[in-house]
Amino acid sequence: MKIIIDAMGGDRAPEETVKAISQASRGTDAEFVVTGDENEIKRRLTQNGADMARIRVVHTETVITMEDDPISAVKGKKDSSMSEGLRLLRDGGDAFVSAGNTGALFMGSSLIVRNVKGIKRAAIGAILPFARPTLLLDSGANVTALPEYLLQWAILGSLYMENVMGIASPTVGLLNNGVEEHKGTPALVEAYGMLQKTGSVNFIGNVEARDVPYGPCDVIVTDGFTGNVTLKLAEGVASFLFRTLKETLTENAASKIFAYPMKGKLKGLKTRFDASEYGGAPILGLRKPVIKAHGSSDARAFLNAIRQAERFARSGFSDKLAGIAELKGCKKDTEKEGNSDEQ
Amino acid sequence: MKIIIDAMGGDRAPEETVKAISQASRGTDAEFVVTGDENEIKRRLTQNGADMARIRVVHTETVITMEDDPISAVKGKKDSSMSEGLRLLRDGGDAFVSAGNTGALFMGSSLIVRNVKGIKRAAIGAILPFARPTLLLDSGANVTALPEYLLQWAILGSLYMENVMGIASPTVGLLNNGVEEHKGTPALVEAYGMLQKTGSVNFIGNVEARDVPYGPCDVIVTDGFTGNVTLKLAEGVASFLFRTLKETLTENAASKIFAYPMKGKLKGLKTRFDASEYGGAPILGLRKPVIKAHGSSDARAFLNAIRQAERFARSGFSDKLAGIAELKGCKKDTEKEGNSDEQ
Repeated sequence: MKIIIDAMGGDRAPEETVKAISQASRGTDAEFVVTGDENEIKRRLTQNGADMARIRVVHTETVITMEDDPISAVKGKKDSSMSEGLRLLRDGGDAFVSAGNTGALFMGSSLIVRNVKGIKRAAIGAILPFARPTLLLDSGANVTALPEYLLQWAILGSLYMENVMGIASPTVGLLNNGVEEHKGTPALVEAYGMLQKTGSVNFIGNVEARDVPYGPCDVIVTDGFTGNVTLKLAEGVASFLFRTLKETLTENAASKIFAYPMKGKLKGLKTRFDASEYGGAPILGLRKPVIKAHGSSDARAFLNAIRQAERFARSGFSDKLAGIAELKGCKKDTEKEGNSDEQ
Repeated sequence: MKIIIDAMGGDRAPEETVKAISQASRGTDAEFVVTGDENEIKRRLTQNGADMARIRVVHTETVITMEDDPISAVKGKKDSSMSEGLRLLRDGGDAFVSAGNTGALFMGSSLIVRNVKGIKRAAIGAILPFARPTLLLDSGANVTALPEYLLQWAILGSLYMENVMGIASPTVGLLNNGVEEHKGTPALVEAYGMLQKTGSVNFIGNVEARDVPYGPCDVIVTDGFTGNVTLKLAEGVASFLFRTLKETLTENAASKIFAYPMKGKLKGLKTRFDASEYGGAPILGLRKPVIKAHGSSDARAFLNAIRQAERFARSGFSDKLAGIAELKGCKKDTEKEGNSDEQ
């Protein structure tokens, strides 16, 4: 089991990423191949008591930053920690983890690792951490979606929740502006029909945004634009409410006294709704597992992403995917521009 | 000033609607024309101490229910309280309020009241009640939107916030999956360009969903599908978090004791985020003001909607709209199917 890790991606790299790698190296039989600034990484690994026998560092010169344009970065910075990591994944690795630029990671994965045969567009899955962990797919990579993409994402999401997250017979819903089957755009109406017919997923019908936090199903399928709005708005509303609540409960000395015993409970509540507890966001549809850790990951969140990558690699996901009849029947994607709308 | 009110629409009609009408009739110089079951409404108005000199009741036989299909309801139930109300609005009324079926109200308004000349599609505005009241437009009536619709909604929303809500030089943002001007679907990229060029609104650029609760601008423009997801998800996340918070803070006897003094504060916080405090949702682009009250409105919420309708009718909204040069330049809408995607 060989896990490739980009030590330089993310806002808190390499400090936090190397801490996480050091911890991951103890108590596993996996090997880690780490890309980035060799001297700095080795120094930090030693400081953090890493099991150096399990880690190989591959030196790279540059880093794709959060501000880089994804296309130019992937094409221009071939010597970056992310690009080298993706090549190492392709050439014998079992999974790859990066907290770097999402657009570049998606583009780079599509170009270097490539999609499974028959998969038209890969997609990024994100866990919504409310009543129960729910996979939102696509959460931002493809701005628009044809009905057959939505069908394929439903299959990919269902396989991921079953084989990697351990949920038996995961349910799949289509995010829509009403539950009736005629609701939504023409693409959604067509996708509804395809999902109803397929034997590959346990489709429960349309789900409305109002019900999403209550966990109406295990996988929610949508285009990447709506997925981005859903994921970011849920994060924004939760963060706004927690902040306002804190201000309200501590606005004067008297309320501070009463609020004090509640502090632990509120913190616990906030942790419960922290998506990084469930690991990073998987890019689904690629030939090998790629996990995107949040850009602001600390060591704990990055460690969760590494462990998620290991679980993903050890799961039966890829074998099961190869057995899905519907993907074999797919026509080859003849579009010229690769498989991403991300810019 | 003649305000037309559908007393029969909504989950809690006519009990709560008539209570609100009774209260509205005291302390205003407006007249009210109320549609619905004459005997029942008159009995309830008397019970609730209404100023009967200000109220005329127009008897109607049927009611459009929440379950009715909008198109069939509008075309089939011509003797309903909603249809009669819309005709009374067209023939001399100054504003109309209903808590009934949203789709039917939108369809009926478009067919009976009609759009202002030059307005291609009317849209429903909803107030997002977070850091500051923000108008989300379209919040659900038009599933898809051409760039010129988005431009017109920006103008309508800006005029509404200025003239009806009293906000000087309201700012307008375009909901998108990133702040850069090349972000989003082709329609959003084109709309961005049009909004940047127009002199009719104070355009601040793209806004991301994560920032929406923090009130980045006064008006957020989007298509009705994304608007529906945004509005419903914000409601869903807030309701889920408040419920979980309550459960957490009162899960055992000890925490109940500490939580008790917080009860009032939490309730106050919940009220602060209640959209109905700002009145109902305006349908913008029609020749006359129509306000949609929430389907579950109690008397307080419905009263706020009536007052909002009165403010809307007394504002300079329609005069200002007539002065917008860009609307005069609009080609006539030659599409056959009226102006709604709502089904």
